[in-house]
Amino acid sequence: MAQLTIDLNQRSYPIHIGAGLLTNTSLYAPAIAGRNVLIVTNDSIAPLYLPTVCEALTDYHVESMVLPDGEKHKTLAVLETIFDKLLQLRYDRSCTLIALGGGVIGDMTGFAAASYQRGVNFIQIPTTLLAQVDSSVGGKTGVNHPLGKNMIGAFHQPRAVIADTDTLSTLSDRQLRAGVAEVIKYGLLIDAPFDAWLREHLPAVLAREPTALSYAIERSCNVKAAIVAADEREKGQRALLNLGHTFGHAIETGMGYGRWLHGEAIAAGMCMAADLSHRIGWINAQERQACIDIIHQAGLPTKPPADISEQQFLDLMAQDKKVRDHTLHLVLLKAIGHTVLTTDFSEAQLRETIRSSYS
Amino acid sequence: MAQLTIDLNQRSYPIHIGAGLLTNTSLYAPAIAGRNVLIVTNDSIAPLYLPTVCEALTDYHVESMVLPDGEKHKTLAVLETIFDKLLQLRYDRSCTLIALGGGVIGDMTGFAAASYQRGVNFIQIPTTLLAQVDSSVGGKTGVNHPLGKNMIGAFHQPRAVIADTDTLSTLSDRQLRAGVAEVIKYGLLIDAPFDAWLREHLPAVLAREPTALSYAIERSCNVKAAIVAADEREKGQRALLNLGHTFGHAIETGMGYGRWLHGEAIAAGMCMAADLSHRIGWINAQERQACIDIIHQAGLPTKPPADISEQQFLDLMAQDKKVRDHTLHLVLLKAIGHTVLTTDFSEAQLRETIRSSYS
Repeated sequence: MAQLTIDLNQRSYPIHIGAGLLTNTSLYAPAIAGRNVLIVTNDSIAPLYLPTVCEALTDYHVESMVLPDGEKHKTLAVLETIFDKLLQLRYDRSCTLIALGGGVIGDMTGFAAASYQRGVNFIQIPTTLLAQVDSSVGGKTGVNHPLGKNMIGAFHQPRAVIADTDTLSTLSDRQLRAGVAEVIKYGLLIDAPFDAWLREHLPAVLAREPTALSYAIERSCNVKAAIVAADEREKGQRALLNLGHTFGHAIETGMGYGRWLHGEAIAAGMCMAADLSHRIGWINAQERQACIDIIHQAGLPTKPPADISEQQFLDLMAQDKKVRDHTLHLVLLKAIGHTVLTTDFSEAQLRETIRSSYS
Repeated sequence: MAQLTIDLNQRSYPIHIGAGLLTNTSLYAPAIAGRNVLIVTNDSIAPLYLPTVCEALTDYHVESMVLPDGEKHKTLAVLETIFDKLLQLRYDRSCTLIALGGGVIGDMTGFAAASYQRGVNFIQIPTTLLAQVDSSVGGKTGVNHPLGKNMIGAFHQPRAVIADTDTLSTLSDRQLRAGVAEVIKYGLLIDAPFDAWLREHLPAVLAREPTALSYAIERSCNVKAAIVAADEREKGQRALLNLGHTFGHAIETGMGYGRWLHGEAIAAGMCMAADLSHRIGWINAQERQACIDIIHQAGLPTKPPADISEQQFLDLMAQDKKVRDHTLHLVLLKAIGHTVLTTDFSEAQLRETIRSSYS
């Protein structure tokens, strides 16, 4: 088992990574304040892992809530049902929420924990690769709005992240690949040696070879932990974690939430970011192609869906949280392993990237 | 004009108190980050002060939104309409929300600002006495749930509070008295000399005599500022600000939001807190009566409405945010000007306080 720490002073917390962690009672105890626990999960995960987690928590009063699975349910309306449940249970400020599931469950449960009685404890138990390497770490929580992804939310750090790699055995190949998209991101972003390692070991990761998979998760979390500790509320460096995300969010919003998985959308988005980075002269054609190659090698989409028109794509991007006073900021590549948040591109260049991506 | 500061390091902000401040452009500028401003107000306040505030902000792109007036509209559903508006306007993270109104508008707009894109700037322009002395200061934001008041929310500090005492001229006597309830609270709570001053000058405050009213607001904000600076997130001392509030919230929730004003409910609640404090031997009969007298003198209710049964009252109190692991904590009086958060009372004593309050 590996343990990393997100270093945020009094809000610091551990990330536990390894096999067989769900049943390890000692990992939960330091993160639970009172006696009352509510586990929030979904109808795909509940039959697989809810009984196991409940068994590890026999010292507490544990209730659970099973939500429908899928990004299209990450809404204010579903969030409200969590508040209803907490109030019906008469849970007070000393309660603890546990998010058992992927990114959707983690984001929504985290936002419920941020807002219930102005903030209660929560624990992340990510059961997808994407959630283990990305969304469960760093305290970004929230829900979608019909006009934009993650538009309503809070920064609210969990008290612990328990990433049990055994839970990945039940993940579909499609879900696994979606998680690999975020793993690839960390290499491109800031960690060229990890990118090099990943190019060599991608087949082992995709085959769920335990050592390779655990290393990929740990290294990804290490990168994310360092960035979050340096910039918890995304005043600067943390924005780099959104490589490919402004393009990706446009795909997700434009297609309707849930039709493309988040990892698939940002995979295509990273290819578009590489294309634009090349178009403005920051990376050469070989580097652009290397980005596309690793994403293709992971079985991920390298182009956006043809259903979204060029103008619609631009409009959707203009709605992103990376917009400041009507100016779009994008994370682009100076090299593999070196990204910056920039406005150094023209709308014409951006249009060319979108147009050429379809062809 | 008086200026106080809420001292919270990088989240510090000024409270401006005085006449004619709405038109003082220089008070707004330091608290507005980008170009885009959304003023959220209600249908009672908009005709009176919205044009004035807009005139002070000609340097910005200003939009406004007029919500229905009243506590019963402080809901997640109405909150969602603020998000809809912000997204329709394509406002990004650099926008600023302005809450122009009483506590309901301030709490809801503040929570919208806390949650929109995980947090944007906001300014409080409180137009009721209650909001000027209490709810606009300290960063508590949120909405009600049918099962409990302020159950969903966030701590999110404004960038400035602009309390223009001229706006109190349009306040009804009932609203003014409701605000005086919170002013009385500060004296009882922690500031015996202020309590003594207030007993002498209450007629002047109720007659809206400018010097007396301004002094009452400034002194109240001073007490609140000191307590918030010491304990922003209510880990300890800040809970004292809830003197009478657990009783009061039970009245508000039990009667249906808006039938009693918040200040009326906590006025009766403070009398009940004084009664229980006497019943457990902390204050004598004269002190208990002195609490009731000043509330009566202000024309505020000293008893809860007879509509709520004893058992219902207890059940509603058990739902309050001051409950920790099923144990009710109450703010009670050791003396006038000295309160503590305590569990040193029995359910029987609490029942006697509730029962005797009706008679």
